[in-house]
Order: sequence, then C-alpha cells, then structure tokens
Amino acid sequence: MFNFEIISESSDSRARAGVIHTGHGMIETPVFMPVGTLGSVKSLSPEELMEAGAQIILGNTYHLYLRPGTEVIDQFNGLHRFMHWDRPILTDSGGFQVFSLARLAKLSEAGVTFQSHIDGSRHLLTPEKAIEIQICLGSDIMMCLDQCIQYPATREQSLTALETTTQWAQRCKRAWKETNNGSNTLFGIVQGSMFTDLRRQSAEELMSAGFPGYAIGGLSVGEPVEMMLEMADFTLPLLPRDRPRYIMGVGTPENLIELAALGTDMFDCVLPTRNARNGQLFTTNGTINISNSRYKDDSGPVDADCRCYTCRHYSRAYLRHLYMARELLAYRLNTIHNVYHFVNFVKHLRKAILDDTFKSFREDFYRKLEN
Amino acid sequence: MFNFEIISESSDSRARAGVIHTGHGMIETPVFMPVGTLGSVKSLSPEELMEAGAQIILGNTYHLYLRPGTEVIDQFNGLHRFMHWDRPILTDSGGFQVFSLARLAKLSEAGVTFQSHIDGSRHLLTPEKAIEIQICLGSDIMMCLDQCIQYPATREQSLTALETTTQWAQRCKRAWKETNNGSNTLFGIVQGSMFTDLRRQSAEELMSAGFPGYAIGGLSVGEPVEMMLEMADFTLPLLPRDRPRYIMGVGTPENLIELAALGTDMFDCVLPTRNARNGQLFTTNGTINISNSRYKDDSGPVDADCRCYTCRHYSRAYLRHLYMARELLAYRLNTIHNVYHFVNFVKHLRKAILDDTFKSFREDFYRKLEN
Repeated sequence: MFNFEIISESSDSRARAGVIHTGHGMIETPVFMPVGTLGSVKSLSPEELMEAGAQIILGNTYHLYLRPGTEVIDQFNGLHRFMHWDRPILTDSGGFQVFSLARLAKLSEAGVTFQSHIDGSRHLLTPEKAIEIQICLGSDIMMCLDQCIQYPATREQSLTALETTTQWAQRCKRAWKETNNGSNTLFGIVQGSMFTDLRRQSAEELMSAGFPGYAIGGLSVGEPVEMMLEMADFTLPLLPRDRPRYIMGVGTPENLIELAALGTDMFDCVLPTRNARNGQLFTTNGTINISNSRYKDDSGPVDADCRCYTCRHYSRAYLRHLYMARELLAYRLNTIHNVYHFVNFVKHLRKAILDDTFKSFREDFYRKLEN
Repeated sequence: MFNFEIISESSDSRARAGVIHTGHGMIETPVFMPVGTLGSVKSLSPEELMEAGAQIILGNTYHLYLRPGTEVIDQFNGLHRFMHWDRPILTDSGGFQVFSLARLAKLSEAGVTFQSHIDGSRHLLTPEKAIEIQICLGSDIMMCLDQCIQYPATREQSLTALETTTQWAQRCKRAWKETNNGSNTLFGIVQGSMFTDLRRQSAEELMSAGFPGYAIGGLSVGEPVEMMLEMADFTLPLLPRDRPRYIMGVGTPENLIELAALGTDMFDCVLPTRNARNGQLFTTNGTINISNSRYKDDSGPVDADCRCYTCRHYSRAYLRHLYMARELLAYRLNTIHNVYHFVNFVKHLRKAILDDTFKSFREDFYRKLEN
C-alpha cells in the first residue's frame, strides 16, 4: 500500500515535492504533521484539523501505551476509529519519551525498562513490543525504536546509542515483516548525535537493513540551530533519494524552510500547538504574543493574510480577552491559527517547489519576517 | 422589534409554547439559553452552539464590564460582532454577581459599590449604568438591576431587597426609555425570597411599572427544590399571560419540565456547561460521570438516543480517556453533548406542548430517568 514518488525537484536547492500513498490516503510532501500526543491534537477536533489542511497527524506510542493502553484502543481496531480521524497517522516508537520523560530508563539485552511518568509503574519496551503497540494503534507509518540522546553527548555515548539503535532497527524490521499485512510501513531513524562520521555509520547500517523511509532523530535536542542544520545538511544526502526523509521534532518556520531546501520531506513539531496555548501566534511577519496589552482593542485579525477560521471570524482584541480570562476557547482558536499557519506554510513551500520558484519563495519569506 | 406571541397552550398543564421576535431573529419558547459568561460559552464555538440548536445565549454584564470592559466591546458595536454570534443575546444586569461574587457590596442611594473579584478595583453600579452597559453590549434582552439575596433571608431583608429592586426597576425602565431605539427590550425581575406575599408585592410593583417581559430571580439560591417550585407555582400566574416569563438560573432537566408545566417560557443555567467540565454528562436515563472506570473500554456513545456531534462520533471510552488525561478536547466534547441535551430536551418539550401531549411527555421523561 505504501508508496512514495517524487513529483518535482527544485533547480536552485535540494528541495523536492512528492506524494506518499498510504492505506488512509495520500500525503503531499513536504508536509507538516501536527502532533496528537494522546489521541487528540490538543483542543482541536478532527474536522478542524482537516479544515486547517492537515494531511497526517502524529500519535505518541509512549503516551498512548500508558493511557488509555493498547487493550482499550484495540477495542476500536486502532487509533483512527478511537479518535475519529480517517487520514494517515504516523506514530513514533516511544524511544524519545522513554529516554526523556519516563523515569529510570535502563537498557538491557531485551530493550529498555522504565517507570511511567504518570504512576511510576514499571514497563519493558523492546523493539518487538514497539512494533506490536504501533500495529495495535493502526499506525500508517511506524517508527523503529531508537535511542535518542541529549545534547551534548560524548562520542562514546553517541556511538553506543547508535549501535543500540541499529540493532533495534533490525529487530523492528523483523517484527514488522512477520506481521506485515501491507497496511502500514516502517521508517528507520538515523542517530549519531553531532558526529558526522557516526551519522554516516548510522545511515549506512539502516540502509543496509533497508527501510521504506528514513528519519533523522536526535536533532533539535538543545544544540545550536547552525549545528542542527549542518547535521541535516550532511545526513540527508546520504539517504536514498527515492525514499521519504523525515526530520523529527523540528521546528520553527525558519527551520522548516531551511530543512526543506536540504531535501526534507516530512516534519512534525509541537511548536504550533504548545505555543498557541502559551499565547504565541505565528504570522508571516513573525510571532506575536496575544497577551500584549497593545492588542486590547485591536479589531484586526491575527494575520491579515491568513484564511484560517480564527482569522476569518475573530479579532486580536477578542483573542486577547479570551486568553487573559483563561477561557478554554482561547487555546482552541489560537491552536487553529497556528496549525493552519504551519500546515499552509509548508503547502505554499511545496507549491514553490512545483513552480520551481523556491529561491524567491524563501527570499520573500525572510523579507516578510523582517517587516 | 420585540414581540411575543403564544402559539399553543397545553390542556393538561399551564405549559405554553410561543415565539419571541428580536432584532437578531426569533426564539421559540420554552427555550433553554446556554450561558456565555465572558463572551464565550465555555469551550464552544458559535457554530457548535448553532449546531446544538441554541437560539439565544446569555452574557454576564458584571463579568464583561470588568473584562474586557465596555470600551473594548464598544469598538465592535457590541458583543455580537466581538464574539461572532449573530443570534439573540440576553444579558443579566450584574446584580446577581455583585451580591454573590464581588467583594464588599455596599448599597447607597445611587446604587451599589463593590470591589472587583479580579483585581479589587472599586466600581459603582447604578440602575442607569446597568442599562448603559447592556446597551453597549448590544443585548437583545436586557435585565433590570436587582438585588438578589441569599437563602435563607429574613422577611425584613427580603422586603428591603424587594423595595430596592422595585426602585431600581423603575429607574432602569426610565433609562431604557430614554435611549430606546427599538433594538432591544427590558425585563423586570421579581424578587421576594421565599415569602409569597412579598413575591406578590414585587410582581405587582413591577407590573405597575410595566415591562415587555418578566423574570423570577432569587430562586435556586440554596432553598429546597420543593420550595423553589412552590414559589414559581405561586408567582408565575401573577405575571401577565401575554408576556414572556423567565426563571433565572434554573436548573436540572427535572426542574425545567416542572417549571415549564407551570408556565415558564425561558431558562438559563450553567449546569450543562459547568458539569460537562467536571465530567458529568446528562442522558435520557440520568447523569453519568465519564471518569468512572466502567467506561474504560465502553465503545458506545454517551447517549444512544442523542444526535449531538459528540454522540455521533465518539465513544464513552474515548471521552473517558480524554477526561482522565485532562485533554482540552474533553471539556469541549462534553460541553457539546450537555448543551445539546438541554437545548433539545426543551425543544422536545415544546413540541409536546404543540402536540398537546405534554402530560405523556412528562411521564415518559420520568420513566426513562428511572431506567
């Protein structure tokens, strides 16, 4: 069922536009994927996500495994029906959260044991278990269990994590192949911290196992943005041209445009949703904080160029009022705007690739930001 | 612009069905009005309110006066455009909150001074000011400033509050007449606590001043439900048959059906919205608490008979999951259901009046509740 084709390549950058086909429909790339951690993109309905143009959303395996648990989601034959979303879903493997959010993560031959951040209960996550959970979730695009490490990390730590990641990827692939009924696919995740030779080693080992798509993990974990871009610049060309390339957990619109220029096809980030709940709204001229008193009686929309539901019907003054009064509708209207902004920014970026006007699109983008 | 006509009267109760015409469209009565305290029915969009069948919503003068303030709402020519709602709005006068929520309420010849519950700032609310604010809000149905007292209250306290309420009602009517451009109307509020002779006195004094509609205030303030019904039973027939009768701040579905049977045309209550946020959902068989572990993997809807957005698309298991995880979508999906339940319960009740089957509708209602 899974298939990826490149439709167009930019002549003045490495940017490319493509289409991914999945069992739940197609995804035009480059694509921005909103994050629905616990089976909901915080505050939004699936209809609002569709209206914002979202083609695919993320679910977090770690979170959903702990709450509500696979035995509940299994009753619904997966996350799609459980949460009333029938477009594609990508799930991470849980690795990132086990090493960042859970307590007492301990590696063993089998996998990694950890304590739930919610109730302290002990769990063992293995590569096979990560696949089993993601199959239960009905994910269209599953991710291999990986060991994502913090920045900075020593070369030795990075190498060890990379080796674990490779072994787990091989085991994930085997587990997937055994259960694979063609309804989902599996991506490998390149690690290697900020060491180019380790990134190369990781990419080569994963390619040797062979995956339908490749992600780059372990970026945007605290390193300077230049280093993040340098690692992406180095690693992306190592990956097969004909497979989708996904950079995990990144980033700002500036990050997205630069990473797209380097040949990235897929992005996800909590930035638009989380920042919306903190009152930070993205516009073509940069971000605004809606709590600012300058918006007290501002009857204009958040972004005059934006066609989202929020900008079509509500003023900055109303959004500020709701936000200051901590009205629940504030978080929702802010999130609608930010998700629309990110999703449609990448849609426009894609169109620029198709029209081969990516260079001027990028210049325009920075010119508007400085306004 | 304001007009009320009775369409049908029940032959086996005092229930009646009517239509109110306003500058923002008509309202079929009996009607349940969701409460939009701060210019939003908590967590819902105006489109969701319309989908739930809401014909009119409430705004709270006290709250909106303090936040965002009339100078902001004035920029939008009123609440309708500010909050993107173009159906009728009823605003209370602020009296109830001044005496229950604000600090240090002190009566004077002019009106009542109080301190904001938000920042302690001092304000003077007069009958004239209450009208001025409501006109600024662009309310379709304004309420007279009244003095609502707690239960229990002595006869003397009740009489004093009643007398103040009458004087304020007269001043409100004068202030309204001076500015009246036909775009809004003004209801008087009957007080008198739990004393029938005081209720009669209040009703007579208000009718002597003359209002296009009458509300009964000071009910559901802590008294036993039988006493509330007794007061309503006594007071409603005192009011002119050809004017809408509104019982403020009440109540449960059981309250609504009993009060409709006594001839009430309008209801408002925070019950469906507030309880939704606490996980209590109303069904034709009574209430359920969605946090109950029995719903952990319940794939059925909240109410199999309900056609609301929530019941059409989501299971109890999903709602429980969202609620337990404190996901923002939980409050919204719960609120959609409860508001739909109340609004449509009263719509069905109205239909039973039109069909003159109110008695059997009421019997059915209680039979289902006991299931």
